[in-house]
Amino acid sequence: MNFKQIVKPSLLLDPQRCKKNIHSMIEKAATNRFELRPHFKTHQSHIIGSWFRDEGIEKITVSSVGMATFFAVNGWDDITIAFPVNIRQMEEIKGLSQKVKLGLVVVDPDTIDILGKELKDSVSIWIEIDVGTHRTGIRPEDTMLIDDIIERIKSYPLLNLIGLLGHAGHSYQSKSVTQVERTHENAVDKMKEIQKRYKSAFPALKISLGDTPAASMLSSFGPIDEFRPGNFVFYDLQQEEIGSCHLDDIAVAMACPVVAVHPDRLQWIIYGGGIHFAKDFLTLKDGQKCFGRWVKPDGKSWVTSETAGGPYISSLSQEHGVVQCTERTFHLCNPGDLSLWLPVHSCMTADAMGEYYSTDGGKIDHYREHLWS
Amino acid sequence: MNFKQIVKPSLLLDPQRCKKNIHSMIEKAATNRFELRPHFKTHQSHIIGSWFRDEGIEKITVSSVGMATFFAVNGWDDITIAFPVNIRQMEEIKGLSQKVKLGLVVVDPDTIDILGKELKDSVSIWIEIDVGTHRTGIRPEDTMLIDDIIERIKSYPLLNLIGLLGHAGHSYQSKSVTQVERTHENAVDKMKEIQKRYKSAFPALKISLGDTPAASMLSSFGPIDEFRPGNFVFYDLQQEEIGSCHLDDIAVAMACPVVAVHPDRLQWIIYGGGIHFAKDFLTLKDGQKCFGRWVKPDGKSWVTSETAGGPYISSLSQEHGVVQCTERTFHLCNPGDLSLWLPVHSCMTADAMGEYYSTDGGKIDHYREHLWS
Repeated sequence: MNFKQIVKPSLLLDPQRCKKNIHSMIEKAATNRFELRPHFKTHQSHIIGSWFRDEGIEKITVSSVGMATFFAVNGWDDITIAFPVNIRQMEEIKGLSQKVKLGLVVVDPDTIDILGKELKDSVSIWIEIDVGTHRTGIRPEDTMLIDDIIERIKSYPLLNLIGLLGHAGHSYQSKSVTQVERTHENAVDKMKEIQKRYKSAFPALKISLGDTPAASMLSSFGPIDEFRPGNFVFYDLQQEEIGSCHLDDIAVAMACPVVAVHPDRLQWIIYGGGIHFAKDFLTLKDGQKCFGRWVKPDGKSWVTSETAGGPYISSLSQEHGVVQCTERTFHLCNPGDLSLWLPVHSCMTADAMGEYYSTDGGKIDHYREHLWS
Repeated sequence: MNFKQIVKPSLLLDPQRCKKNIHSMIEKAATNRFELRPHFKTHQSHIIGSWFRDEGIEKITVSSVGMATFFAVNGWDDITIAFPVNIRQMEEIKGLSQKVKLGLVVVDPDTIDILGKELKDSVSIWIEIDVGTHRTGIRPEDTMLIDDIIERIKSYPLLNLIGLLGHAGHSYQSKSVTQVERTHENAVDKMKEIQKRYKSAFPALKISLGDTPAASMLSSFGPIDEFRPGNFVFYDLQQEEIGSCHLDDIAVAMACPVVAVHPDRLQWIIYGGGIHFAKDFLTLKDGQKCFGRWVKPDGKSWVTSETAGGPYISSLSQEHGVVQCTERTFHLCNPGDLSLWLPVHSCMTADAMGEYYSTDGGKIDHYREHLWS
């Protein structure tokens, strides 16, 4: 990709950084003897998926039925949809269960009955446990509900209870490796207790967890069977703040034309807004919001040596980004220049952009939910 | 649209509400004798554009070169791109200036020279003035910069200085009609002063402003020539909070399947996240965030009679929405049900979704920036 060819907001992907992230996580899984079932919701790409396949990955996680179909047509045949079953999509789920080894996540007894009655092919059932994030999943102490779900699963021969699935998403609030460790250990303990309770009936019940901070920062994981991190494929400023990665590991950057500069307030205006970056932000020490950090173009890619203390995006509207500089950095861009930005939340930015430009040249695909069906 | 057919997050559009909003604004412009040049960045749709055309609108505003092209191919031939000229898109700008009466916005003297030297067809030039939002635009007191820009414009015969353009986007922070009024009057005063300064050289310099709160709430507008509101076509919870509209005027609603319910914390989980709603939020009186408010399905559309005090979306991740209910409202939905939600910021939600379903049946198009070129 020649930067001169970029005329509007574009998401750049550095394959070297990305493949290094993939390789490191696969090595970590091998060392720690858990099965890596990477979450493909971050990249949502056939091409990037093939980089995982090249490293031996055969099992994947996705977050919607549409995304599962997108990867199934690309030859992936062992897919877990890590989102509570949406029974309104039963027809598509039935189609998927014919074609691939499908894993479904349940939190609701009635959903089990509907699946049991509707499905014509076998599926793996994960019971989602709330390990402390309080988004989805059954409370570990709600044994009556877990019992009810398990009893119902047992009555449908095509529903194979495979294990307990959790997502310690509250690790994203962590400020240190110790906190991430504690959150992970606590999640594992909760899972182990439930596993023990059903050991006689289901001796092989698996434990699956999945957050990128734990996957990146920890060096021991306890008795888990499977890990489903996703964000590590790109990382982002949020992960860098938590401590999951270094700035230089971040594998995507937004390229945005500068359209105005304001010397009086040391700000640039970029063509690049909320519809491009999405609107996740970090809160800086001085209370300011940060929606992206500047990186310096270098050859076909970028370097992060001047990123700390450099320009950052302080607000985003639909197409505008306002960039805060200092007297030292204000001169770095003029109207007409291209500026490069590390995103705060790469999953959301990639989804907003819907395609990538490889720094090695060429486009890289991204699933588009609203066009697929 | 039959609600039973909706299986995943979908953006519904109620044409009756939408056409009523369009009609009201056109009447207001006629009464107040300003030219309405509606901003099409909110809906970005050929079909919805045709509803404006049916009411006599011939001049429009857009926020990107790509969006201008999208509407130019649909027969619109008087288009202002209300965003500082991005000279990296010069080829597309040149193409547009051949085909339509093109209005461009400048804030930078060098950009004038580049336009003057590159363009082969005449364009209208608006100088953007910062009327207090501090996003883009020249400070009114920076007369040296305005002089410089005007002198340069004069030296290029194809660049026709048409007027002063501003956007009082800080009216979005208003809490009362008096505040909106004051913001508008202050913006008009700033524009008038500059207009006066150049009266002898440019006796017909126009004033163009553009925020939806002023357009919706005020009944007198002062000596402005043109108004460019956009959001009023749909409105949203943000506008309702400011006082620009009633809940019942909001013309779009997200339809999202409920996938789980949590009686212990009185929450539902919906399939509908940040990639669908986008992540703008309101802050409620108790400090909680609100990313959308529930409306009750009614026939093919919805009613808002139970919306105040009803369920609201308290957090969004990529595909999940967490909905906070009360004991009184928790029973309203079960897993598998479809829930309907008024968005906080309809421009961003429509852009994230990229298409609409009319409550009268059929799909309604939306421009897709990243696929268009």
